Amino acid sequence: MLRSNPIRMVVIFVLAMGFNRSLAQNKTISLQVNQDRLERRIHELAQFGRDSTGHGYRVAYTPGDIAGRAWYMKQMRQAGLEVSIDAAGNLIGMRKGKNPNLKPIAFGSHIDMVPDGGNYDGCVGSISALEVMDVLKENQILTDHPLEILIFSNEEGGTYGSSFMAGHLSEEDLKTVSQSGLTLYDGIKAIGGDPDHLRDAVRQKGDLAAFLELHIEQGAFLDQDHIQIGVVSGIVGIVDWEVTIEGMANHAGTTPMNLRHDALLAAAKYIQAVNEVITSHEGRQVGTVGKLSVQPGAYNVIPGKVITSLEIRDLDADKIMMLFHEIEGRAAEIAKTSGVTISFNKIIGTTPALTNKSIQDLIIQSAEKLDLSYQVMPSGAGHDSQEMATIAPVGMIFVPSVKGISHSPDEYTKPEDMANGANVLLQTILALDKE
Amino acid sequence: MLRSNPIRMVVIFVLAMGFNRSLAQNKTISLQVNQDRLERRIHELAQFGRDSTGHGYRVAYTPGDIAGRAWYMKQMRQAGLEVSIDAAGNLIGMRKGKNPNLKPIAFGSHIDMVPDGGNYDGCVGSISALEVMDVLKENQILTDHPLEILIFSNEEGGTYGSSFMAGHLSEEDLKTVSQSGLTLYDGIKAIGGDPDHLRDAVRQKGDLAAFLELHIEQGAFLDQDHIQIGVVSGIVGIVDWEVTIEGMANHAGTTPMNLRHDALLAAAKYIQAVNEVITSHEGRQVGTVGKLSVQPGAYNVIPGKVITSLEIRDLDADKIMMLFHEIEGRAAEIAKTSGVTISFNKIIGTTPALTNKSIQDLIIQSAEKLDLSYQVMPSGAGHDSQEMATIAPVGMIFVPSVKGISHSPDEYTKPEDMANGANVLLQTILALDKE
Repeated sequence: MLRSNPIRMVVIFVLAMGFNRSLAQNKTISLQVNQDRLERRIHELAQFGRDSTGHGYRVAYTPGDIAGRAWYMKQMRQAGLEVSIDAAGNLIGMRKGKNPNLKPIAFGSHIDMVPDGGNYDGCVGSISALEVMDVLKENQILTDHPLEILIFSNEEGGTYGSSFMAGHLSEEDLKTVSQSGLTLYDGIKAIGGDPDHLRDAVRQKGDLAAFLELHIEQGAFLDQDHIQIGVVSGIVGIVDWEVTIEGMANHAGTTPMNLRHDALLAAAKYIQAVNEVITSHEGRQVGTVGKLSVQPGAYNVIPGKVITSLEIRDLDADKIMMLFHEIEGRAAEIAKTSGVTISFNKIIGTTPALTNKSIQDLIIQSAEKLDLSYQVMPSGAGHDSQEMATIAPVGMIFVPSVKGISHSPDEYTKPEDMANGANVLLQTILALDKE
Repeated sequence: MLRSNPIRMVVIFVLAMGFNRSLAQNKTISLQVNQDRLERRIHELAQFGRDSTGHGYRVAYTPGDIAGRAWYMKQMRQAGLEVSIDAAGNLIGMRKGKNPNLKPIAFGSHIDMVPDGGNYDGCVGSISALEVMDVLKENQILTDHPLEILIFSNEEGGTYGSSFMAGHLSEEDLKTVSQSGLTLYDGIKAIGGDPDHLRDAVRQKGDLAAFLELHIEQGAFLDQDHIQIGVVSGIVGIVDWEVTIEGMANHAGTTPMNLRHDALLAAAKYIQAVNEVITSHEGRQVGTVGKLSVQPGAYNVIPGKVITSLEIRDLDADKIMMLFHEIEGRAAEIAKTSGVTISFNKIIGTTPALTNKSIQDLIIQSAEKLDLSYQVMPSGAGHDSQEMATIAPVGMIFVPSVKGISHSPDEYTKPEDMANGANVLLQTILALDKE
């Protein structure tokens, strides 16, 4: 509180003196978020949703999620926002603008978490959105555009709240069983949504002037290079394949080496081929083999079957498929020389989502004005922003994650880094408002 | 029956005529086992121990095993043998010899099976042992040495019956829980053994003149090369290690390729190194990585830990360790370049067991007399003979397994191949008796 009060008082004084608007506008750069309040609220929100070991368990639709959402709505009301829950269970906090003809500038993130998750993931962006509203209120700043906080429901389960808002999901999807054990239908009901009128949650292209999301990086780029702000160029597309390798199980003692059809040996060659293909091309693409099971899986039996995986992520959908086809070609060679079969079955695919170039520039200008170092970078993780990018110009701001740790109780972002991100968010909103 | 009756009658005639002993001895080569009876008994024994799908389930100590053993004991009694069960649950069938000062020539195998096992594995040798006794009885041949059938208990669980007989296990081992769900203690009780007096089952070195085991090959050498008899040079030693690879689990989207410590990628390199080391040396050694589990094991998480395996088999214990050390060296390089640790934990080790050279020669002579093709070869699988080799001169005879399939309902050995093996067993016993 000590840190920001003097600044806040100066701004109030400036406004109270009736200085003209352009001066006040120049002065907005001296607006600062309240770092202590940010930090306090991160800790407050962290109290909601704990498992028996005291670790975070604010999984969407569970009692912890419901309690956290209630707390968040209370904060929005205290900030003077008009609070509602849409049909998909997304939390909405509206603040009127001067010009009712302008479309709202929206911003936010999510507060649900993975089991045993961390307290920073979607929370830093959600708490910072509140902070922006509080700073504007405290400084009696009325924007031209209406402002809107969006806290999406069940992001961790698969960006469900934002997908419903972007009109990408159907009623059929409501049958999906979520991590909570509830179907999406029952889960959305549990958090105050209205799954019977899901279409009411859908926003059309053009309904929003922009959507901004502040989020922790969940990677180690910023932390390792001591960069304060990540300007997200886009959110990578993710394609997953299940990979089945069939050889022939046999006795490990009586089958000579040259008569084997060892599915695990072929899998070993495949895993190396994936790594070679992915790293042999320029760029930031990643390729991962994360899953593998062996049948029958005994010390003394030659593996007959392996079920494994492939995931490729990149900002360019064509590049993902180019890399996949190269891996497929290598796998066909391995299958031939190893006397096995290798087949790929695509199981999910998201398309890459690019952020808006003009908004990227505004984020950069905000960082520069605040004297913060920055780096334009892709997001390797999925976010609600990638759904929102299909219906609105989107901007995304990253702040460092210590050691890149995420989805873990060890997840951490320093208070000054959170404040830097929230300040960039605030300045970018104000700049967007004046465009 | 048709096939052997005329021959049997000739022999009975020869004996009845009072021909001198050396002539009778030369005529023993015309003694032939009864192939139809062999085949019929294989089918009869297969009726005992079935799972709900009708597949074989004569796992040691289960009701199927007990029923099969009762049937076997009945056959031994019908052959005029003195039947007993030793303290370790091994079935014993004694036939007196002419000279009570000579040590018994023992032969046999086992009738227990793995779950979903085959009907030939240890059964061919067990049924052939009965057949030898029947042929001798039918032809009124009394050997100089006493003869003894040994049907070892719980071979598939880890050659337990023969290990107890060879004095290699202690009372501590009785606590081991077997595949049946019973401890060895309770299992041995269930089949009529006396686990409280286990030492009564121990035979000393020199107690037996020899031990012979006929067994299916469980590999594809003989079948592929159309060889009728395998003369086993020894039973390979088997050493197993649990291999732990520790890297660092991380987000598959946000962790660039060059910052990963991917335990599965390192495992892939390790698996290939095992194959390269094993196949780069001359000889019949085999090396297998049959087991592998990944943690956390998700499409979108870089593997943090892999637990995998190594098994090396060879007739030469020093060579096994030489190969292991070479693999260990390769693993250390992989660990260094991959940023992971790789550790080996030896979990079991059996020493190779060589068969007796003189008995090998008698088996070869028997095969030659019977005009059967043969091949001297190691056994890649473990057998009771390897325990018996520590207390007696051992000989082992293999017959072909179709396609090398074993431990499977598809396991099959042709009746004529079983009969060939049983005839070689019979002739080898008679030759040993006259030495």
